[in-house]
Order: sequence, then structure tokens, then C-alpha cells
Amino acid sequence: MSGVGARAIIAGRGVLPDLLLQKAPARVVAFDGIAVEAEGTGVIPARFERLGALFDDLAAAGVTEICFAGAMSRPALDPTALDDVTRALMPRLMQAMAQGDDALLRDIAALFEERGVAVIGAHDLRPDLVADVGCLAGEPLPEADVARARAVLDALGPLDVGQGAVAGRGQVLGIETLQGTDAMLDFVARTAPGSGGVLVKRPKPGQDLRFDMPAIGPDTLRAVAAAGLKGIEIAAGGVLLLDREAVLSACAESGVALWASP
Amino acid sequence: MSGVGARAIIAGRGVLPDLLLQKAPARVVAFDGIAVEAEGTGVIPARFERLGALFDDLAAAGVTEICFAGAMSRPALDPTALDDVTRALMPRLMQAMAQGDDALLRDIAALFEERGVAVIGAHDLRPDLVADVGCLAGEPLPEADVARARAVLDALGPLDVGQGAVAGRGQVLGIETLQGTDAMLDFVARTAPGSGGVLVKRPKPGQDLRFDMPAIGPDTLRAVAAAGLKGIEIAAGGVLLLDREAVLSACAESGVALWASP
Repeated sequence: MSGVGARAIIAGRGVLPDLLLQKAPARVVAFDGIAVEAEGTGVIPARFERLGALFDDLAAAGVTEICFAGAMSRPALDPTALDDVTRALMPRLMQAMAQGDDALLRDIAALFEERGVAVIGAHDLRPDLVADVGCLAGEPLPEADVARARAVLDALGPLDVGQGAVAGRGQVLGIETLQGTDAMLDFVARTAPGSGGVLVKRPKPGQDLRFDMPAIGPDTLRAVAAAGLKGIEIAAGGVLLLDREAVLSACAESGVALWASP
Repeated sequence: MSGVGARAIIAGRGVLPDLLLQKAPARVVAFDGIAVEAEGTGVIPARFERLGALFDDLAAAGVTEICFAGAMSRPALDPTALDDVTRALMPRLMQAMAQGDDALLRDIAALFEERGVAVIGAHDLRPDLVADVGCLAGEPLPEADVARARAVLDALGPLDVGQGAVAGRGQVLGIETLQGTDAMLDFVARTAPGSGGVLVKRPKPGQDLRFDMPAIGPDTLRAVAAAGLKGIEIAAGGVLLLDREAVLSACAESGVALWASP
């Protein structure tokens, strides 16, 4: 808890909320329909249809800083359950939604900031979860494959598509779509086994790292090994390791290399 | 056979060589390792390692015009089997190969053209295998999905990646990689069933349509239906229908719409 007020974690799926709470106390905002395992110093239940109630609850709890942590899917909204504040915000949210996930998340952050609540990133709370430039594990990666996968991500970035791509033997073998990294790695394992290529995982160019920051965990390492890839290149400071220790032991077990680049 | 000399079909996999031979007689160049079903007025056996022998055989047969027809994978070359002409060309071919499939194919075409053999496209021989702008079958396609998938292809075109992409409900659900359209559609069927989206299939921007022209057949229609998509948008004049009649009856059977756009 900082001097100026309390902090709240907007809890999504996965281990990130717990990793943040390990380091510093915080309230936990638990949206309906998201299985929240994290328990903070006090859970604030919330519904997407009742943002007005959430703003009031945060103010009553003295929360001045929030952090979105973990994956959240676009919710199905029940139009009959909207509170007045949310109803008034709907045209604005619908417009942002039409522009893609990035625009929607940026607008949701703006809603909080307009009410005096700062929005910070998970890496601001735990800088130890992102990597510095250099080798985290294993041998150097095939440069041509790294360059090819990065070129794909750079080209798709402006379209708000893709935080991951796989290249092997100089060819593009997988491009991440809505279904995510694991689905892409499973596709590569099925359709292009044994390429000895690489997974490149980076935020989209210009992405606001306070939301939807790309992440890898020990499962990613195992899926990369199963897809017959040599290693992973991540963006230094731009991809969360969930968590670092588990990722590094999965590297050691699987023999998969891990490098961070500018 | 034209007035100026004989024509030869460089036969790859699939039905295209036969579709071309149905309309006009031609010699068939059959590369070792490619199962050629087509039988022309005379088959010319060939090996990738012996391009010198192929140039000689074509000249002896009076061939002045060739057409690449059907898919060919990058061959594994046996370095001990190279004839002198091919050995001398290897540095040039290796350099083209490093720049991607388009560059390689363009360079192979140039090799023939430098020897006075014109290279024409399958659509030059059978313009009835490509579509004019408009509806070929079914209802209008969801415009936002078509626009989204096309934007992905436009962005990736300069990288020599991707002749196909799938979008549904405004989201990108599949991007074609080396493994091809069928593998992508199978991925979409597994990971994002029932989206009601579209497959967009187009040549890469600036692609030389004399090689590796995108194609759809009745199997594509069935795979699109199995992936829960509403329809396909193809580039008018830029995607082969193999063949038109089979594609249109597969549209009718599957209920999948098919449109061609500029």
C-alpha cells in the first residue's frame, strides 16, 4: 500500500495476480465469471455491467492505483443488468471495441484515469518478471529464423494482430492469431515437426504494456520443445516470465534456449 | 502447338497439368520424384540436377513456350549428380533461394527465357479457370471479416508469406504459412469452430502469376465448410478454380459462398 492510497489488482486468469500479491499487499477486483485464485487483503466483487458500482467501491476503499493482471476474454454483456454509469459509457466502449482489443483496453484504462485512479503495469510492480537483453538459457538462436519471425510480427503489428510467430529453416511456420500461442505451437508440432526453428514473442509495436503484455511460462517452454523448436526470442522488458524461476528450470529440462533482444 | 514451336507443361502435383492438356496438346516435362499423372504428346523426363540436359531436350523437341503447372516442393539436390550447366548455375540459384520462393521461381523462369523459351501462366492457357469480378455462388460475405483478412494478406505480402487468411467475428483466426491452406483450415476447424467467418485467398501483392498461383478446388470448399466458415473471397483473375465446374458444385453442396473481387 503506497502512501497516497491503496492499490488493487484487476484479476484475470493465470498465476500473475498471485505473483504480484506475493510482493506487495493489494485489494483484488474479482470480475464475475473469472475464476480468481488470488486472495488479496480484501476482494472487491465486480461485474462488467456495473462499472459505476466498481468505481464507487474503489473510491470507498481508497484505491488510487490499479493493475490489470492476467488474461481476460471479451465478456458477453447482459444488457438488462447495466447500471446507469455503464449504460452511459456503452456507445464509447462499443466504438473502442470496434477498433480492436488494444483500443478497448486503452479506453478502459482511460475510464479509471478520468476518475483519478492510476493504471500501472505488472512489470512496474515486479520488474524481476521481465528480462534484460541477453541470454537467459542455452545456445545462440538461428539468426535467419529470428529475423523472419520478427519481420512477420513487425508487419502485422499495425493491424493489432499477433504477438508471436514461428520460423524454421528460413520459412514462416506459424503466426499467432486470436487462439493464442499454445494453439499456434500445437499447429507447428502437428504440421511442421522437427524444424529446429524459433518462436519469437514480442509486444505489438507501440503496444501499451499495461495490458495484455505477452507472457511465457513453463508450459510455453514445453510446447516449444514439443514443436521441435530450438528456442525462444523475447523482447527485453516486454514479455513477462511467469515466473522467472519456473521458466528457467523448464529451459534447463527441455534444452530450449531463451534470449531477450532489444 | 503454336505456329512458332511446341509447348511443354512443367508438371507438378495435382489436376492442373491434365486440365491444361485437355484444351491443347503439349509435351510434358516430368521431374524425377514428382508423380506425374498427366500424359502429353510425349513426356520429357527431367532431374533438377540436370538442367543442362533439360534445356537440350527442350531445344531438340522444338519447345519455345513452357508453362509451370501444379505444386512443386523445393527439391533436395544430389550434389554428385549435377551436370555442368546446373553446377555453373548453382551460385545464382542459391542466391535466389535465399530470397524466398518468389525470387527462386522468377529466376528459374529467367533461365528458360535467356534460352529463348517463353514462360506463360496456366491462366494464359485456360482463362476459364480464373473468375471475373462478382458472385460465383451464395450470399454476400461478412464485409468486416473480408476486410480484416485482406489487410493481413496486404501486410504480409512484401514478406513473401501468405496467400490465405481467415477472419471471423471481426477477428483474425488463421494466417496461411508454409504448410498451406488445408493445414490452416484444419487449424481453424479445431480451434475456432462455428465462427461464420471467411477465407480470403489472393496472390501476394506483385506476385508473378506464372508460378505458384493460388488455387482452390472442391476439397477447399469442403474444408471451408468443415471450419464453420460462410464463404471464400478470391481475387478475380488471380486464383485458379480447379476446376470451375467441380468448385461450383462443391459450393452448391456445402452452402459455402464464393465471390471474386478486384
